[in-house]
Amino acid sequence: MKYTFSNKISSLQPSAIREILKATSDPSIIPLAAGNPAPDAFPVDEVRVIAADILEKRPIDALQYGVSEGYQSLRETIISWIKKHENIGRDFDNCIIVSGATQVMDLTTKVLCNEGDVVICEEPSFIGSLNCFRSYGCRLKGVPVEADGMNVEVLEEVLKTTPNAKFIYTIPNFQNPSGATMSLTKRERLYSLAKQYGVIILEDNPYGDLRVEGDALPTIKSMDDDGIVIYAGSFSKILSPGLRVAYCIAPQELLAKMTVGKQATDVHTSCLNQMIVDEWFKHYDVDAHIKKIQGIYRKKLDLMCKCIDRELGDFVEYVRPEGGLFIWCRLPDSVDMLAFVQKAVEKKVAVVPGNAFLMNDNDSTQYIRLNFSTPSDEGIVNGIKALGEVAAQYGK
Amino acid sequence: MKYTFSNKISSLQPSAIREILKATSDPSIIPLAAGNPAPDAFPVDEVRVIAADILEKRPIDALQYGVSEGYQSLRETIISWIKKHENIGRDFDNCIIVSGATQVMDLTTKVLCNEGDVVICEEPSFIGSLNCFRSYGCRLKGVPVEADGMNVEVLEEVLKTTPNAKFIYTIPNFQNPSGATMSLTKRERLYSLAKQYGVIILEDNPYGDLRVEGDALPTIKSMDDDGIVIYAGSFSKILSPGLRVAYCIAPQELLAKMTVGKQATDVHTSCLNQMIVDEWFKHYDVDAHIKKIQGIYRKKLDLMCKCIDRELGDFVEYVRPEGGLFIWCRLPDSVDMLAFVQKAVEKKVAVVPGNAFLMNDNDSTQYIRLNFSTPSDEGIVNGIKALGEVAAQYGK
Repeated sequence: MKYTFSNKISSLQPSAIREILKATSDPSIIPLAAGNPAPDAFPVDEVRVIAADILEKRPIDALQYGVSEGYQSLRETIISWIKKHENIGRDFDNCIIVSGATQVMDLTTKVLCNEGDVVICEEPSFIGSLNCFRSYGCRLKGVPVEADGMNVEVLEEVLKTTPNAKFIYTIPNFQNPSGATMSLTKRERLYSLAKQYGVIILEDNPYGDLRVEGDALPTIKSMDDDGIVIYAGSFSKILSPGLRVAYCIAPQELLAKMTVGKQATDVHTSCLNQMIVDEWFKHYDVDAHIKKIQGIYRKKLDLMCKCIDRELGDFVEYVRPEGGLFIWCRLPDSVDMLAFVQKAVEKKVAVVPGNAFLMNDNDSTQYIRLNFSTPSDEGIVNGIKALGEVAAQYGK
Repeated sequence: MKYTFSNKISSLQPSAIREILKATSDPSIIPLAAGNPAPDAFPVDEVRVIAADILEKRPIDALQYGVSEGYQSLRETIISWIKKHENIGRDFDNCIIVSGATQVMDLTTKVLCNEGDVVICEEPSFIGSLNCFRSYGCRLKGVPVEADGMNVEVLEEVLKTTPNAKFIYTIPNFQNPSGATMSLTKRERLYSLAKQYGVIILEDNPYGDLRVEGDALPTIKSMDDDGIVIYAGSFSKILSPGLRVAYCIAPQELLAKMTVGKQATDVHTSCLNQMIVDEWFKHYDVDAHIKKIQGIYRKKLDLMCKCIDRELGDFVEYVRPEGGLFIWCRLPDSVDMLAFVQKAVEKKVAVVPGNAFLMNDNDSTQYIRLNFSTPSDEGIVNGIKALGEVAAQYGK
């Protein structure tokens, strides 16, 4: 049978990152292309104790159907934690639990966008979210990311000229892939522009707690007196991505529709996993754990930067991020970026070609994305050394 | 801010079942409206042992990111089990793991349907799936369900007159809500009609293993020499719904697109939970477990039928199902069905009004859906007794 696919899915390619990851499942390849948290950042012993306790004392709660909004106790835990932690949450806000933060992008797009509507994105931006928006037949308009975040002049121009823009997607902290953190001035400007033009902000903050230097900046959601910000929070980077538990804080009126969407998508998030997260918050010092993993990531970032400076020197340009998982490196104009990435794979190092993060991935860019959380320290040293050898082929 | 929702979500109401469930979270209400597996059907001790073992020996695999297709070992386990168990799987087929079977409906609709396309459904049918199709802006065409399944004459008429029908959604075993099992003749006819008209079949089989009498019939997917059937299998009824692990067997070309959709939806299904299912298959006798829970459901079905016959007698008509979770009861024409359901709630019994399962839930019907798996035996006895008291108000 010849299959006919929907328009929205026909144009959608498999995620370049995930395809590269699969191509490089060969364990001899050094994974600088991934975005995995460092395995030693997982609170393994705690999760083991918690899971055993849950399955001993409340197995039926863990194994039975739950409600689409999420496990009530975890919702309350998050509401109180995120208020203290990020000053997020007004009277009109509420919280739902989702199966990983990507589901916040999915449900936001489902409830706000008709086919052909526009989503305004930072350019470059996270390919997973871009593909999510594309999978609803949305058109993407890119706003360039600078070292201090989205160019707000371009944003204003886009808002002025795009009547069917439904929301602005931003990763304000240690943006994926650029590593950029949006300045406070730009956060405030973004908020006031969104308010002025009546466009929702979707704030995706998976990396916020992975700050390794500098002072934390207020989230955009913490400024939200007007009910215009949907906040996507994740436990993938501070606890575990494999559990697929994340959350959304947004005005109740929006969440009610997103919950209806979730009922029709995956019914609810795993009860066992929601209970594990809830018990982790109740019985362990999450803030101390976050401090601990910041130490792990600080070391890894330092190491990678040191290696890049030593092995690649002037061959690449990058802005050292204050946290997150990624370094965004610019190759010289004379270098064919995709050929460089291919040569790196031949040297057994996987990096992500930067065009994967563009609104139109046929556009060209000189950037590659490097990840410092997944590889071991040895992997960082050897991986960047191998990239240096590739660079040497260009007469570096 | 005044929010503007997408057309597809605006028309979608919260699931009547889930709303009723929430309204009746009062533990004094007898839950004949639910669709939960019987808690004593969960292999609690096995899951406890397995989870402890996984988190002891392979915690990083359980907590780290996985791939969108699913945990490779579980995929292989399912492919081999479902071949033996249901004779499902040809060379062109493959398997992906999803986060509950509803995600198969979600991904199928995403990859096959543009807004305005038609999904042909049994009428009545499972509200969760109907809402999923609606959430993509699909139009639903209903084909009446008879005691031996879908009316295939009406189906042919619909296929003839609906050029943009993209797939036929069917629950052939112990259909939700009607309890009907499609005869072999009708399965074969459905398959040949779908082939003739070039329309995919989406076969949803969550209850197939809950057969308590009669002989098992071949799944439609087992007839699929042409690559026209997408099969949704679930562990929610035989292992646990709270783990949110299910699977899809379909031609690889379809699955490749569905996997791209899954990447953009929830990235992948919980690794820990996939490993739990896989280890359960590897270390326990799943077929023996299925036999055991069939015994549990047989007793509960018997009990409910006995109670209905005693307490409600001629007041209701129903066809005793050969398995599954539901009894579909017809009230007398003289009774206002919704008023009856309301009176039942006042008597502290929750049942689902049948219109929730119609293509247009403003249409009227005399049916209510009763569930016999969730309530305790005492709940069944007292619940049906209370319904008898409501019936008595109508001069039964």
